[in-house]
Amino acid sequence: MKTVTFHGIVAARQILNQFLQPTPLRYYEELSEKFGFQAYVKHENHLPTGSFKVRGGINFMANLPAEQKNRGVVTATRGNHGQSIAYAAAQFGVKATIVVPYGNNPEKNSAMRAFGAELIEHGTVFDEACQLCETLQTERNLYYVHPGLEPALIHGVGTYSLEIFESLPDVDTIIVPIGGGSGICGAITVVKAINPNVKIIGVQAENAPAVYRSWKTGQHIETASCNTVADGLAIRVPFEFPLSIMRGGVDDIVLLSEAEFLEGIHLALRWTHNLAEGAGAASIAAAQKLSDKLAGQNVVMIMSGANVDTETLKAVFVALDFFHE
Amino acid sequence: MKTVTFHGIVAARQILNQFLQPTPLRYYEELSEKFGFQAYVKHENHLPTGSFKVRGGINFMANLPAEQKNRGVVTATRGNHGQSIAYAAAQFGVKATIVVPYGNNPEKNSAMRAFGAELIEHGTVFDEACQLCETLQTERNLYYVHPGLEPALIHGVGTYSLEIFESLPDVDTIIVPIGGGSGICGAITVVKAINPNVKIIGVQAENAPAVYRSWKTGQHIETASCNTVADGLAIRVPFEFPLSIMRGGVDDIVLLSEAEFLEGIHLALRWTHNLAEGAGAASIAAAQKLSDKLAGQNVVMIMSGANVDTETLKAVFVALDFFHE
Repeated sequence: MKTVTFHGIVAARQILNQFLQPTPLRYYEELSEKFGFQAYVKHENHLPTGSFKVRGGINFMANLPAEQKNRGVVTATRGNHGQSIAYAAAQFGVKATIVVPYGNNPEKNSAMRAFGAELIEHGTVFDEACQLCETLQTERNLYYVHPGLEPALIHGVGTYSLEIFESLPDVDTIIVPIGGGSGICGAITVVKAINPNVKIIGVQAENAPAVYRSWKTGQHIETASCNTVADGLAIRVPFEFPLSIMRGGVDDIVLLSEAEFLEGIHLALRWTHNLAEGAGAASIAAAQKLSDKLAGQNVVMIMSGANVDTETLKAVFVALDFFHE
Repeated sequence: MKTVTFHGIVAARQILNQFLQPTPLRYYEELSEKFGFQAYVKHENHLPTGSFKVRGGINFMANLPAEQKNRGVVTATRGNHGQSIAYAAAQFGVKATIVVPYGNNPEKNSAMRAFGAELIEHGTVFDEACQLCETLQTERNLYYVHPGLEPALIHGVGTYSLEIFESLPDVDTIIVPIGGGSGICGAITVVKAINPNVKIIGVQAENAPAVYRSWKTGQHIETASCNTVADGLAIRVPFEFPLSIMRGGVDDIVLLSEAEFLEGIHLALRWTHNLAEGAGAASIAAAQKLSDKLAGQNVVMIMSGANVDTETLKAVFVALDFFHE
């Protein structure tokens, strides 16, 4: 029986201390004045691989039994999860095989190869890539790191929420982008253990609202497509395991339009001088949208990742009519 | 007699440990393949205020006698030095007055005000702003933090070079942008103490080559103007104190064109997913230019700051014909 526990997150912290230093929780005065609340950004974009996921990958790999380390691992990804597993595998001398759908962003594919992973393109959507993982698990005798079923991944990424409380014990609200859901499940677990009064607000895309709808209705809802510029949030079929943790643990989930994600990337560049990918900028965009509700609070926005590709960055400047503002 | 010593940098490290954590020295595999050497970036852009200067500001303020803390401080700046002093002053409860020339970037002015400093606009160039500091020193009885005459500033920023050796003891070359010169003087002092075989390469702007020419000729050379997109390097009149340290301590200084600075900002976005200002991207642009010479080496590029303004970022995308690449 797989479970996520606060103890697991505390234990992950001890492991991660050997590999990563805490990310900055930065207070931004100008953003605070603009938004009308105390604006803090948790800079997960500063981590190696440019994303919070690396915390999960390292914790997973550190806990993998030696026998399975020797066999090697396989996983499916659109980008940041794969970079995390590739990076962590390299740290521990484990062979990593990463499956991506055809048409996956070439810059992200290149980054995964650069960490030493074998990259396989298969199928046209993420689900088909996952199916190949199951096949390779048997055929090549690899350990399948399921992106939605490994408590060690959630325990790892949960450490950023621990760090938030250490830097800012009187945090009021944490805003977290939701893709597979590991980040928000870590936040839920830490908040429940330390201060259940802290509000957790998730962010999803209008174009990829499967988790939102499943959470809202209490059912398992898949969507026909999930095309969003915030590719880290592009989930068509929710993972039941993290969803079960989200039920009852999330105070609200905000949906953002494609234009709002691009505006979020621009807000991040302008006011924090950081490059954020769509998912990484989602919390800032959502915070702007909710600013009335958050007035006066200590609000932490998770900047989950930096890995925006060139095409998306172009879209930011086109969409915002950047040259004429 | 003002002197810069390795001991001063080690002492600064003890102070800064209470305020800042070390910045990441990140290895970039794809950039290494592109450049043909082992490419490491020292992410000073991740610091509060978005620039390495904050190390100097904090060390200076921590060492300022209580009597002078009570009087308050004044300094002149184009941006990052002022943010550093404003930020550090706020940390220590010291009143900061910052003088900028008229026409200084409004985004940088706004950032300094946000840290609680009183901002005064005076004169049309940096030198005139400095002159007002001397006046205010007398009239308002403030301590004038001269950007080029305070060993405590150099000792503070020198700590990043200490961190480099701790992370990468077998570094071969460090590439450092040169504005006032505090960063490179810190690097020279650390390299001399730890491993004098390490090469130090400075970077300046073709449009603002006063330090380069003074270093090259052994004389004190001022330029008529210093208009460069890398405003952190816009020095028309070299400071003699850091220049005296640079003489004999720098292996080479590279001059970059305006287009090369913009290309550097683009390289930083594309390959490190970090936003760098012109000066912050200067090391990457210079490294690309010198890649043949650096082949096979362990090269550290200092990404000194993130504080690029909106206009400059527009210029990057226009100059690179970003929409048609």
